[in-house]
Amino acid sequence: MSGPPLYLDCDTGVDDALALAQLVGVGADLVGVGSVSGNLAAAGGARNTLDLLAMLGRPDVPVAVGAHDPIGGTFDGGAAFVHGENGIGGVVLPRAGEPVDGSAAELLVRLAHEHAGELRVLAVGPLTNLALALELEPALPRLVRDVVLMGGAALAPGNISAVAEANIGNDPLAAHAVFAADWPVTMVGLDVTMHARFEESHRRALAEAPGAVPRALAAMLDVYFGYYTPILGRPSSALHDPLAAAIATGQVEPTLAPVVPVEVDATDGPGRGQTLVDLRSRFVGYPPLPGTRHRVVLGIPDGFGDLLLETLLPLP
Amino acid sequence: MSGPPLYLDCDTGVDDALALAQLVGVGADLVGVGSVSGNLAAAGGARNTLDLLAMLGRPDVPVAVGAHDPIGGTFDGGAAFVHGENGIGGVVLPRAGEPVDGSAAELLVRLAHEHAGELRVLAVGPLTNLALALELEPALPRLVRDVVLMGGAALAPGNISAVAEANIGNDPLAAHAVFAADWPVTMVGLDVTMHARFEESHRRALAEAPGAVPRALAAMLDVYFGYYTPILGRPSSALHDPLAAAIATGQVEPTLAPVVPVEVDATDGPGRGQTLVDLRSRFVGYPPLPGTRHRVVLGIPDGFGDLLLETLLPLP
Repeated sequence: MSGPPLYLDCDTGVDDALALAQLVGVGADLVGVGSVSGNLAAAGGARNTLDLLAMLGRPDVPVAVGAHDPIGGTFDGGAAFVHGENGIGGVVLPRAGEPVDGSAAELLVRLAHEHAGELRVLAVGPLTNLALALELEPALPRLVRDVVLMGGAALAPGNISAVAEANIGNDPLAAHAVFAADWPVTMVGLDVTMHARFEESHRRALAEAPGAVPRALAAMLDVYFGYYTPILGRPSSALHDPLAAAIATGQVEPTLAPVVPVEVDATDGPGRGQTLVDLRSRFVGYPPLPGTRHRVVLGIPDGFGDLLLETLLPLP
Repeated sequence: MSGPPLYLDCDTGVDDALALAQLVGVGADLVGVGSVSGNLAAAGGARNTLDLLAMLGRPDVPVAVGAHDPIGGTFDGGAAFVHGENGIGGVVLPRAGEPVDGSAAELLVRLAHEHAGELRVLAVGPLTNLALALELEPALPRLVRDVVLMGGAALAPGNISAVAEANIGNDPLAAHAVFAADWPVTMVGLDVTMHARFEESHRRALAEAPGAVPRALAAMLDVYFGYYTPILGRPSSALHDPLAAAIATGQVEPTLAPVVPVEVDATDGPGRGQTLVDLRSRFVGYPPLPGTRHRVVLGIPDGFGDLLLETLLPLP
């Protein structure tokens, strides 16, 4: 195992599945996973996670079912048009394992105490479970080492509105609480994840690999490519969650990631769900801004698709 | 006179003064000016405008005093720390002329009828007068050729909050109405105006020019440089309003200016006063977005400071 103990919060989802495989592939010290409604309902996300962890040879990792509804709202039904009806492109995995008792928020709080000062939280879905955990345990920001999340957009357009990215926009109140809490967040948003891509050559290489995991991932990517191909203009897909996972494990080191204030718009206005990233400090003499705490990833090295492929190809 | 008949709405203001001089310098067909509270109170802005127009040899241009308070709010007192107490860096101009009767909104509506289908509106202050004119004359968007405005930010940080530029942020309700109205707006925001600069060499050249106008402008720039120098890291200033004027007169042709939807955040949330510029269409296959009507300037040719200097140096 390498790197800090890691709690993963996810809504598995095609790119969440890739992220989970990336984590196991690089030998991350995965100590627990919570699911949350996002790409699909939390219960279904936990099912996909358990099945995939078993295939990956990690049935030991505890998986807890997290929040079904966003804070103060109702789950919108997910994004089957992106991820397929079952969240993983219609691929049927061997059913394996059961979730642990208790909520994802409870699991996160327990792990934060067990690994006090060490635990890294990697969140690649809506931030509902993290917000609930902050309510359960107000000392959480001191117990947790840091938070790495896939979500938001600083300079890039949103993907569910002009300015809102789906993970933030699906639970703006939770995201507001997570960015307002006194812990350092590394935000891996659309600024970089839209430029991290799998091409058709990567998908084909996975499909031709010996392992069941790479072949299952290739099959999931059929639906996912179907969504992205018209947008991106050629057979390909963005790699949102795997990029956040690779940054959380240190496999990818950002090339540009200023530490700046970030606030989430939780109003009902047109900016709802936007991450307001305060980049005024880019002017040399700008006075220090309160809340300068979060690292916003704006640049990554080229070639992440190749790097991810290398990590996934040897999987069982 | 060259170009379309032009109504200027301004809060004169050091950079408004530069813009006014630019307009006269390139021979724009200036048919009327309205003032609005922004950099200073509307009455003071009209005073500065009248005095400067007389020095520029255009005492014939009618100037109307516009709105003192933003829509639904109260004028905040202005930005003396940027523009000096009298708005033009403490420079005392010979007093000349009086405003016409009636409000700026009334003048705009009258001119829109007189030049139906031809009038270009150039707004370089808060958009209060334009919003009031839209209420006075609901047919205004059909009567006006187009609107060019200095304001907002698409990708650049704001200058009064993380995301809000002053002209929009000082009257978000008015700005919301202006962008929602059915006329084409060219938005010249901080994305480009922060990169249009006067350096110390430009200021000195103005100070050594024979004409009273360039020398007065150089004196005004002392205070303005005082504000910008620590931010920009060397003696220099941004050229917000003159750049919008140069685009309105065709002196500058943007190098990048997509036509996209723009909505203004008029909530009381953290995004208040933001121009939400929907750039999702940058992805090749993005489906058409409703409200795709406004041209947002994101790139300009290099060397605007030199070009502006050339225009200002020969002035009387």
